[in-house]
Amino acid sequence: MAHEHIVKSFDSELARLYGELKRMGELSVRQLTDAGAILLARDAAAADQLIANDGEIDALERDVSTDVLRLLALRQPMARDLREVYSALKIAADIERVGDLAANVAKRSKVLNLSAVIPAVAGLPALIELAAELVREAIQSYLSRDAELAKRVRERDAELDQLYTRIFREVLTYMAEDARMITACTHLLFIAKNIERIGDHATNIAESAWFVVHGEAMIEARTKRDGTTG
Amino acid sequence: MAHEHIVKSFDSELARLYGELKRMGELSVRQLTDAGAILLARDAAAADQLIANDGEIDALERDVSTDVLRLLALRQPMARDLREVYSALKIAADIERVGDLAANVAKRSKVLNLSAVIPAVAGLPALIELAAELVREAIQSYLSRDAELAKRVRERDAELDQLYTRIFREVLTYMAEDARMITACTHLLFIAKNIERIGDHATNIAESAWFVVHGEAMIEARTKRDGTTG
Repeated sequence: MAHEHIVKSFDSELARLYGELKRMGELSVRQLTDAGAILLARDAAAADQLIANDGEIDALERDVSTDVLRLLALRQPMARDLREVYSALKIAADIERVGDLAANVAKRSKVLNLSAVIPAVAGLPALIELAAELVREAIQSYLSRDAELAKRVRERDAELDQLYTRIFREVLTYMAEDARMITACTHLLFIAKNIERIGDHATNIAESAWFVVHGEAMIEARTKRDGTTG
Repeated sequence: MAHEHIVKSFDSELARLYGELKRMGELSVRQLTDAGAILLARDAAAADQLIANDGEIDALERDVSTDVLRLLALRQPMARDLREVYSALKIAADIERVGDLAANVAKRSKVLNLSAVIPAVAGLPALIELAAELVREAIQSYLSRDAELAKRVRERDAELDQLYTRIFREVLTYMAEDARMITACTHLLFIAKNIERIGDHATNIAESAWFVVHGEAMIEARTKRDGTTG
């Protein structure tokens, strides 16, 4: 009976951890898609609000870390349980970075508002949508222990890299044509780079999901198709 | 006797972990300073070698993770011991990123070799030296449990941000004057950004060191003096 109670309690603590990760994931994806909308709308006030919202994701990451440390100390999980807890910690760190990068997109969008609209901005919604999808699916693959989905997420990161490379080149060409646009274009390049990095974090999350299921790392090397020496 | 043996064994496993972190730290700092030298020397072959070397840091991070998981499962550390182990994991992840960023500096240096020398490159050695110093001291603060050193490292990250901002602005001005230099200058901006990010990882490591000593996070907000909306 006592053992059962401990087991049940461990499961309920894990469930709490998953709830926090799920919430973090939803918030970070929303921050990312909102950052894209704000960029198109050139809405500086909304950008400031989005930057302030990032604190909520940071606080959730601290909650996850605290919960993981408590779980490790009190429950002393073994084998797969230990992998679950360990992966939760890593995934929380990746989602926190997705939030940071989304906030940085909003921050840089304010610099873009000071210049004329750069045509390549039209390519960002597709880039953001794909990155958001990869983050969403990576977290889904972890929460539903779907290793095949995790594998697909990692494979699709190459699509994001290709899209990023296309935008990167388009912006470089545009910069060369109009020196007055150099500052804005530079920030646009960093914005696109941030989104490409978000894809890397989705890949990390997918790799953590795979590790939880299989107990070992994904072996095949990921094809990196980012042609900008990213 | 049995208990003493377990305690001693835990200590020796911790010592092994510290040894791995120390080695990772040395390698990543060397990669960073070498990347700076390669950039100045415009040596593409050495850049390729440096990129290949990054695998050793990645492998060490995997060793640390494996050792931490084994330590958690077999030794079930509590309180400060648990914080030590947990921080080792976080620090290994930060050092691994320092290695990635250094390798990316080398990768982008090859693009710079295709154009004339950009005057702002002369500002990079100071930026790299400061970043390397912060990483070195951050790891030192962790290994020697020196919370005051950890605090100073975090404070000095503002110097790195200021230096980065100065280089960033210098490059932007230069780009505006010569459109043929736009591609190379863009990569130089990303190189400088990578080094500024290395400072953030040094700060993370310093915060982990503080956490090990005090059992709580550093409270005072860090002043971010990067004026490029980094």
